[in-house]
Amino acid sequence: MVEEVLTGRLEENKVRLGPEALKDLYEQGYFGKPSGKGLDLSLVEAVYLLDRSRIRVHSEDADKCRKELSYKDLFQIASAREKGFEFRYVVYKDLRERGYYVQPGRPDFRVYPRGGHPGKTPAEFYVYVLSERTPVPLNEFLEPVRLASQMRKRLMVAVVDEESDITFYEAREKSMTGKMGKDDGGGKATLLEDRVALWDEAASEKLHHRGFYGKAVGGRLQLSLVESAYLLEKSVISITDREGIPLNLEEFKKRAGNVEEDFDAKYQVYKDLRDKGLVVKTGFKFGTHFRVYKQVEAPDKAPHSEYLVHTLPKDYVFPLPVLSRAIRLAHSVRKEMIFAYPEGNSVKYLEIKRLRP
Amino acid sequence: MVEEVLTGRLEENKVRLGPEALKDLYEQGYFGKPSGKGLDLSLVEAVYLLDRSRIRVHSEDADKCRKELSYKDLFQIASAREKGFEFRYVVYKDLRERGYYVQPGRPDFRVYPRGGHPGKTPAEFYVYVLSERTPVPLNEFLEPVRLASQMRKRLMVAVVDEESDITFYEAREKSMTGKMGKDDGGGKATLLEDRVALWDEAASEKLHHRGFYGKAVGGRLQLSLVESAYLLEKSVISITDREGIPLNLEEFKKRAGNVEEDFDAKYQVYKDLRDKGLVVKTGFKFGTHFRVYKQVEAPDKAPHSEYLVHTLPKDYVFPLPVLSRAIRLAHSVRKEMIFAYPEGNSVKYLEIKRLRP
Repeated sequence: MVEEVLTGRLEENKVRLGPEALKDLYEQGYFGKPSGKGLDLSLVEAVYLLDRSRIRVHSEDADKCRKELSYKDLFQIASAREKGFEFRYVVYKDLRERGYYVQPGRPDFRVYPRGGHPGKTPAEFYVYVLSERTPVPLNEFLEPVRLASQMRKRLMVAVVDEESDITFYEAREKSMTGKMGKDDGGGKATLLEDRVALWDEAASEKLHHRGFYGKAVGGRLQLSLVESAYLLEKSVISITDREGIPLNLEEFKKRAGNVEEDFDAKYQVYKDLRDKGLVVKTGFKFGTHFRVYKQVEAPDKAPHSEYLVHTLPKDYVFPLPVLSRAIRLAHSVRKEMIFAYPEGNSVKYLEIKRLRP
Repeated sequence: MVEEVLTGRLEENKVRLGPEALKDLYEQGYFGKPSGKGLDLSLVEAVYLLDRSRIRVHSEDADKCRKELSYKDLFQIASAREKGFEFRYVVYKDLRERGYYVQPGRPDFRVYPRGGHPGKTPAEFYVYVLSERTPVPLNEFLEPVRLASQMRKRLMVAVVDEESDITFYEAREKSMTGKMGKDDGGGKATLLEDRVALWDEAASEKLHHRGFYGKAVGGRLQLSLVESAYLLEKSVISITDREGIPLNLEEFKKRAGNVEEDFDAKYQVYKDLRDKGLVVKTGFKFGTHFRVYKQVEAPDKAPHSEYLVHTLPKDYVFPLPVLSRAIRLAHSVRKEMIFAYPEGNSVKYLEIKRLRP
C-alpha cells in the first residue's frame, strides 16, 4: 500500500514529483504547477500534502544518500528556507480547509471563487499574507491593493496573529462624495487656546444648522481648528486672536500647527472631504480623526455617520494591531473604516474592512 | 431692576462679591467660596453666572476707571489667564446643567452625589479635566487616580474633544485574580521564525485542553512567544532552535526580544496574570496585547473573556484618542479595559471605563 503514495524529491524551494502526480494532485485538486512531464509543488503545498499523507518526500544529502523527511523535518526546513513560511502555511491550510482552490502567486496566493477552479474561472482574490508582528509601510501595503485593482481582482489581506489565528480583511481604493451645498454665514470669531469662539448668535445658528459646523455652547458656536481654517479659507468667517489682531489663513494655520502637530495633514483631508460635499466632524469618540456624513439636513436630524476617516502621512508604517483595532471599532458602530493619505496635492482614500471567507 | 443683580469685581483669578452673595449664590447653589464677609467666585463660576445674568462683573483699569465686562470680555480674559479654561468651563457647565453641585477643587472639580450637597454629604467624585489634544504621561494620570483612592472618592476623567464634546471616564486601580490551577504536560518544542511548535500530539492536547495554551494546527500546538517562555520557565516544556540547540529561559527571552521589541514588558504582565490564575490569550483581534479569562474549563467551552489588557511602559504618554478607541472597543465587546504597567518588580493594573453621569 505504501508504494501507492506519490513520492517527490526536495529541490531548493520546491518538491518535484513525476508525471503520475499530474492526474492525482493537479487535475483533482489543482495542487502544484505542471513543469516538463512532472509537477512542482511549492513548500507550502508539499507540507500540506505530507501532513495529509498524500505524498512522501525524500531529500538527497551531499553524499547522494536518500532520506525520507517527516512532517517535522520538512516543516523546519521550509521555515528556515522561506521567510514567513509559518504564516503562509497557516493561511494556505485554512483556505484549503474551507474548500477553496488556492494557488501560489503574487503577492502570496490566488483564490478561486466557490464552484470555480483554475482553467474554468478566473481567480477572485489575490491574497496578501502578513504577520501581526511585522509593521507594514503604507506604500508597501498599497502595492498589492493597486496590483489587484489593475487585474480586476479583490485583495484579501490575511493577518496571522501570534497564536496563529487569522483575521481576513479586504482592502481597496475608495472614492468619496457627499451631497452638501456651499456654506455661507459670516461673523467674527476669536482664536482662544486651542479652539475658536464665534460670538454672533445668528451666524452661529446658521453655520451650525446648515453645515453642522461647531458645537453650540450657550447659543454661541465653538469651532474646531480645522472647521475654522476651512470657513476662513472660504471667507465665511473672519478670525482675530485674543488681542484682537486679525489672522489670515496662513497665520491661522501656523498657530493651529503649534497647537496640533499634524494640523496641516488633517486639514488637507478635512478640506478635500468638505469640498467633495461631505460633512466632517471629529471622530474622537471613535479614536479617529473624523466621522463623516454624506448629508446632514439639520443637527437635530443628524443621521448615522457612514465613515470613520483617519489621516496617515505618506511615510506611515502600520502596526497591524492598530489597524485591527480601528477596523474592529468602526464595524462595531456600523461604519466603514477609511484611511486617507496625501498623493501629490490630492488626497487618496483606502477602505479596509473585515472579510469572512 | 438692574440694581438687583449682584455685582462683583474681577481680581486676578477670581471675582469678589459682597455679603449679599452668600445667601443668593452660596446657600442656594453652592457657588463660590465664602471668604471674610463676602464670596469669591472662580473664573469658571463667574463666567457661568454671568452667562445666566445672575451677576454683573466690573473690572478696574490702572486709572481706577470701572468698566462692566460682557460675557465675551470675561471669557477672553479667563481664557488668557488660566490654562485650560475653555475645557474646564465646558465640563463645569455640562455638570451643572445635569443638576449636580460642582465646586472647584483638586484636581479640577468636586462633584456631589445626586440629592447631596456641600455640608450635607461628602463629594462623590473628583473630576480631572483633560483636552483631547494634550497627551498625558501615565505617571501624571496616576496622580489623581491615587489621590481619589486615598480620599475614598471616585475619579471622573472628563475629556473634551476639539469640538467641545465631553466624554466621561472613571479610572481606578484594579486587582486581578483568576481560578486556574498549575500546568503540567511536558514535551519538546522548536522555536521557528516567530513562534514555537510543540510536536508531541499528546502533550499538545493536554496543554491546550487544560490551560488553553497555543493553537492546534493539525493536532500539534503552535505556541506564542510569551506562552512558550512561561511554560519554559515553569519547566513544563523544553525548547530547541531549528538547529537542535537547546535554549534556556535567558537565551529564549533574548531571541524572543529580537522578534518582538516589547517582549520583556509583555512577558512580565503575561507571567503575572498566569501566576494569579488567569488565562491569557492574544488580544490581537481587539488591538490589545491580551484578552483574559478568569477561568477556562476547556477550549471548546471557552467562555466570554472578561478583560482586555494592554501593557504600557512606565514612561508611557497617553494620546487620548488612543485611550478613547481602546475603551470604546472593549465596551463594544462587553469587556473591561485594563492597562498594565510595571512598578518595581511587580505589575499594577488600571481600569478605565466609560461613565454616563
